[in-house]
Amino acid sequence: MKVVKFGGSSVANADQIHKITNIIESDPSRKVIVVSAPGKRYKEDTKITDLLINLGELIEQNQSSEDIYGQISDRFQSMIAELGLSGDVWSKIKDKIDGSIDLIKQGDKQGIDALKSCGEDGSALLVSAYLQHKGTPASYVNPKEAGIVVRDQPGGAIVLEESFEKLFELRSREETLVIPGFFGFTPEGKLVTFSRGGSDITGSIVAAGLKAELYENFTDVDSVYCVNPMIVENPKQLTSLTYREMRELSYAGFSVFHDEALIPAFKEKIPVCIKNTNNPSAPGTMIVAELPEREGHVVGIASDTGFLNLYVSKYLMNREIGFGRRLLQILEDEGVSFEHAPSGIDDMSVVLRENQLPKKKEEVVVQRIKDELKVDMVMIEREMAMIMIVGEGMNQTVGIASNAARAFREAGVNIEMINQGSSEVSMMFGVKSHNLSTAVQSLYKTFFESASITKDPVHRDF
Amino acid sequence: MKVVKFGGSSVANADQIHKITNIIESDPSRKVIVVSAPGKRYKEDTKITDLLINLGELIEQNQSSEDIYGQISDRFQSMIAELGLSGDVWSKIKDKIDGSIDLIKQGDKQGIDALKSCGEDGSALLVSAYLQHKGTPASYVNPKEAGIVVRDQPGGAIVLEESFEKLFELRSREETLVIPGFFGFTPEGKLVTFSRGGSDITGSIVAAGLKAELYENFTDVDSVYCVNPMIVENPKQLTSLTYREMRELSYAGFSVFHDEALIPAFKEKIPVCIKNTNNPSAPGTMIVAELPEREGHVVGIASDTGFLNLYVSKYLMNREIGFGRRLLQILEDEGVSFEHAPSGIDDMSVVLRENQLPKKKEEVVVQRIKDELKVDMVMIEREMAMIMIVGEGMNQTVGIASNAARAFREAGVNIEMINQGSSEVSMMFGVKSHNLSTAVQSLYKTFFESASITKDPVHRDF
Repeated sequence: MKVVKFGGSSVANADQIHKITNIIESDPSRKVIVVSAPGKRYKEDTKITDLLINLGELIEQNQSSEDIYGQISDRFQSMIAELGLSGDVWSKIKDKIDGSIDLIKQGDKQGIDALKSCGEDGSALLVSAYLQHKGTPASYVNPKEAGIVVRDQPGGAIVLEESFEKLFELRSREETLVIPGFFGFTPEGKLVTFSRGGSDITGSIVAAGLKAELYENFTDVDSVYCVNPMIVENPKQLTSLTYREMRELSYAGFSVFHDEALIPAFKEKIPVCIKNTNNPSAPGTMIVAELPEREGHVVGIASDTGFLNLYVSKYLMNREIGFGRRLLQILEDEGVSFEHAPSGIDDMSVVLRENQLPKKKEEVVVQRIKDELKVDMVMIEREMAMIMIVGEGMNQTVGIASNAARAFREAGVNIEMINQGSSEVSMMFGVKSHNLSTAVQSLYKTFFESASITKDPVHRDF
Repeated sequence: MKVVKFGGSSVANADQIHKITNIIESDPSRKVIVVSAPGKRYKEDTKITDLLINLGELIEQNQSSEDIYGQISDRFQSMIAELGLSGDVWSKIKDKIDGSIDLIKQGDKQGIDALKSCGEDGSALLVSAYLQHKGTPASYVNPKEAGIVVRDQPGGAIVLEESFEKLFELRSREETLVIPGFFGFTPEGKLVTFSRGGSDITGSIVAAGLKAELYENFTDVDSVYCVNPMIVENPKQLTSLTYREMRELSYAGFSVFHDEALIPAFKEKIPVCIKNTNNPSAPGTMIVAELPEREGHVVGIASDTGFLNLYVSKYLMNREIGFGRRLLQILEDEGVSFEHAPSGIDDMSVVLRENQLPKKKEEVVVQRIKDELKVDMVMIEREMAMIMIVGEGMNQTVGIASNAARAFREAGVNIEMINQGSSEVSMMFGVKSHNLSTAVQSLYKTFFESASITKDPVHRDF
């Protein structure tokens, strides 16, 4: 049994919905479907979710919202008409939108999340109706019915363990099930959404709960690239990678997946396949727990900007038990999350995402460090970028660091920071943001284009 | 005015004492002298300080101590006789030894420190008497009289700020002053010793307090080597280095200096010169605040064994605000001091000195990490070694990392950890202990023997 998730571009219009039902029907094991909200049909188009968020804001502010409401209604109704479905489907979607609007008007905080979820909910209603229309037995399954129980947490819901057992019961259903992504319900029955892009999370949770043999994630690319195609033109594609590789790549800027989306699937060791709705016969990229060949190759290069370095120095810091802990305590007190904390002998750096330390908070943090830790110096360096090279076993492979360092040298880029040794599958480099592209291009050349280093570094059989 | 410190081998016998008085008399600005206890005269010899420690233990245990007492007495008396000094000098030394023994017998904890300090005290009495004997006006100055006030702390005294002002008053004295190293007095007048090797600390404190133009540290080598001569045969000598370079090199195994000895001198920006008592005309090694040429050269390679890596991993660690802080808190609670804490995304390593985590304590720490942090894995890896390459400006020099990584590769040594980015003057590498020598030899070859990288990397004018 396969769980299949379709992203926003795969349900953006009637044509796309027709395509995905063909994909579903072409493989009888594709039994449980998770859908995103309709995405952009063309570059300047607006995603349904953005329209819904906009609508919610207008209603909260008591402003005129008829225009936006009309756009949402038109998009759903034109799809329904094109697919030859009955007006019934729109009535159901409309009821949910109107119900959410009423909640907002009553000042119920749940209203905004409920309205935001109407895009995915509408997609699921549409797709299940169209499958039935084509003669494939199918049901819409609400996340509450499916058993997706979550903890309500600022910025995004967190799935609760009990969900998985409940989800497993869906295996007894005979028809094809279509579940809207992006939201779940608290044990008290309150609708809450995951963080943005949360349909990937739903898909991963459902695949884990159902112990699927495969979780297929359909998007609009043939496979995952080994490096950001905005930085390197036409880069190599990855046929396979491990969960850990994917997780590290996602962290540092790989946009295929939401950072944590795959974790529920990882935990259950469900293989994941990234495929293209517009080219379903392409093999896609497989993401699995383990790969048999582990030659210590670099399989991907991820990069991200927007970091800063908080540097402190103090004579004899290294003799002061608790110094590092107290520095991190100050950050924690101020609600600042840090990424890494490399230390020297009399100095220590803390690498943060820049958004964690707006100017106002920076002043407070710096003052507290001066006052409470009596440091000799504290300094903030912004506009840092992180580059991560990733590959199973590479940290036990002699020469990877050497090749990487040579790539930076050839690019004329100074390495501001190296963090290696904790993760077995990655090596992290800090550079000034303006050097990012040059450095990544040079690394790509070194690890993916130079035949002398390794032949065919990305294709591995499994 | 120069402050001059002589190490144990420089006061080991009458010949050596004769040599050092010649050194003192050859330069009228050598006005303040700090001396160690008489060291070894030949390889199998025992240092006076070790004899005194042994004597103290025997007395504490109420065992026969006449033999050891006799050895100490013989060494001092034969030096006195050979130098043609009066029996008066031995009476003064004997009074101090006997007084300390009485304190120990009375169960006064101060007794052990007082007895340990008799080696340096004896040296100072001897040297000052011999200078007078040769016609050079000289006085013995006790650290209490000099104003060396310290905080009594387990494992070693810490100098208090008030000392420096008091020491400055010594500038008004006209004769040559001879101060015993290794001890000071608490504000309550209790004698306490610095940590072992503490005469370097005294010298540095005295030089800082007197705002000396130069602090000369006489030992038995012509200069500081750029790498451990036990690992690389006949390595290059350093003519000059900065305080920061010296501090980082000392940390990771350079044995010329006690790790923190130079800090008081550093703070006052007193230049330090390491010289050889047995070859005083050699220029020695200058250690200064700043050097004019900063080409980003590697000036030294330090290395040390005896580290371990405590590795923890947990899914989504990186989203858990306070995780790193809580891990360090556990170590702090258990009195464990850590060196570095590199982190990945879902994992974190803490590098410690092995002596910080004996097996018993390891169990407690590991259990607490499991229980309190709910980690997926915790693992201890022992027998790690650290290698540090050091040089002002090197972290802003493109290519140093590349050369270093290539050296490891050529040696066939895997880099387990890289810590770069916090210190501006060093880059740290973790390797398995058994790879240490091979790696250091390869780094030496790369940075000090290869003409293609940089000509003459160690000689810098200033």
